[in-house]
Amino acid sequence: MKIDLAFSPYELEKKDLREKAVVVIDVLRATSTMIVALENGCQAFIPVATIEDAKKLAAEFRDSHFLLGGERQALPIEGFQLGNSPRDYRPEKVKGKTVIMSTTNGTRALVAARQATIVFIGAFLNLSALCQRLIEGKRDVLIACSGEKELFCLEDTVCGGAVVSSLEEAGLGLLKSDSALAAQILYKQFQGNIYQMLLTSEWGQYLERIGLGEDVRLCAQIDSFNSVPVSREGKVYLDR
Amino acid sequence: MKIDLAFSPYELEKKDLREKAVVVIDVLRATSTMIVALENGCQAFIPVATIEDAKKLAAEFRDSHFLLGGERQALPIEGFQLGNSPRDYRPEKVKGKTVIMSTTNGTRALVAARQATIVFIGAFLNLSALCQRLIEGKRDVLIACSGEKELFCLEDTVCGGAVVSSLEEAGLGLLKSDSALAAQILYKQFQGNIYQMLLTSEWGQYLERIGLGEDVRLCAQIDSFNSVPVSREGKVYLDR
Repeated sequence: MKIDLAFSPYELEKKDLREKAVVVIDVLRATSTMIVALENGCQAFIPVATIEDAKKLAAEFRDSHFLLGGERQALPIEGFQLGNSPRDYRPEKVKGKTVIMSTTNGTRALVAARQATIVFIGAFLNLSALCQRLIEGKRDVLIACSGEKELFCLEDTVCGGAVVSSLEEAGLGLLKSDSALAAQILYKQFQGNIYQMLLTSEWGQYLERIGLGEDVRLCAQIDSFNSVPVSREGKVYLDR
Repeated sequence: MKIDLAFSPYELEKKDLREKAVVVIDVLRATSTMIVALENGCQAFIPVATIEDAKKLAAEFRDSHFLLGGERQALPIEGFQLGNSPRDYRPEKVKGKTVIMSTTNGTRALVAARQATIVFIGAFLNLSALCQRLIEGKRDVLIACSGEKELFCLEDTVCGGAVVSSLEEAGLGLLKSDSALAAQILYKQFQGNIYQMLLTSEWGQYLERIGLGEDVRLCAQIDSFNSVPVSREGKVYLDR
């Protein structure tokens, strides 16, 4: 099984996605938040690239079934009902709802991944369940880190490296690209303390500074959930 | 001192280069070859992005003082006098000459770095001398990996990580970006055997396969040279 990793949506767009299982990762916080929200009964997410796209889509639907969610610079967007914190997506708020979501990096990566045969949503929160799905699927894997404004970020790469390590330990005889090997080495450096790694990362430090440290702590939990959301035809949902 | 690292020319273009010392690295092989050639008496390189640009410039000069050099897919370009192997640039061939050079990644990175205040040419071949110049310069450092077709490659990042490690050991109190930290961790993983790392890398394997393994071995030599070429006003040369 071949495994490759893109550090950013830009890199993802340079790669051949056909016949691949793509895993989109935005640890802090979009994919972590999606996992929590869907577990809390949220029906689906519709990821869109811009705030304007989100508003336009919401106006088309004009229906209490739809909510607007997302962030810019980690802060809620004016007029949106939900931010990008997993703590926002409580059952009483999101149960049965579809969230039109725009974030700086995570939704950008989801949009870039649309050409793939199958797209999974990954984070530390669902690591083991995600790897199980990849092992069962037997496809070549491409890990799509959301990064930070089209650039490398530490936390998504380390999470991607955890996937590489898990698949290798499962005895799959992995053929690793340079970037997949690098991510695995980075994961091994930090595997003893993922929370500390998040606090070391530039974006984790920023979230701490603006008072969102509790989100960082939440997103460091490994295997809190068993669900692996998929992204298909422009929607993210649980297909169980 | 702040230190940051771009995995590719694309990432470099997204960063602010003003007031920075930029180090362009293309271990396999453009910057290694430039160091060898300039040590062998070559006067200067003029890096250009495309084969057409190289031919046009050569036609303008039409002078035996100028030679054409470079590669595509690691192979020499038709009609060019020199390839991209350090072994091509022997003293009897390059002494006193200026080489108009076009490679897939290295010259692309040099062109992208032009906005920086000062640009150094780095490789394992001149690691210590390079770090000494950066320490003396006291500027914030941005390491510009050439990468592979706008994507991450292992060998340039590990070489960049060696620079990060050296500057940290010099007690400079480095403020490292996520990517600089990641590069340093990768360097520490491979520092015992740089040649083995090159043989593990995708591009190193490719060079081996097409019979250029001797170049890989040459480019793994640490501190063979004390010179640190600079790139200024479109030319790469030794300013000693």
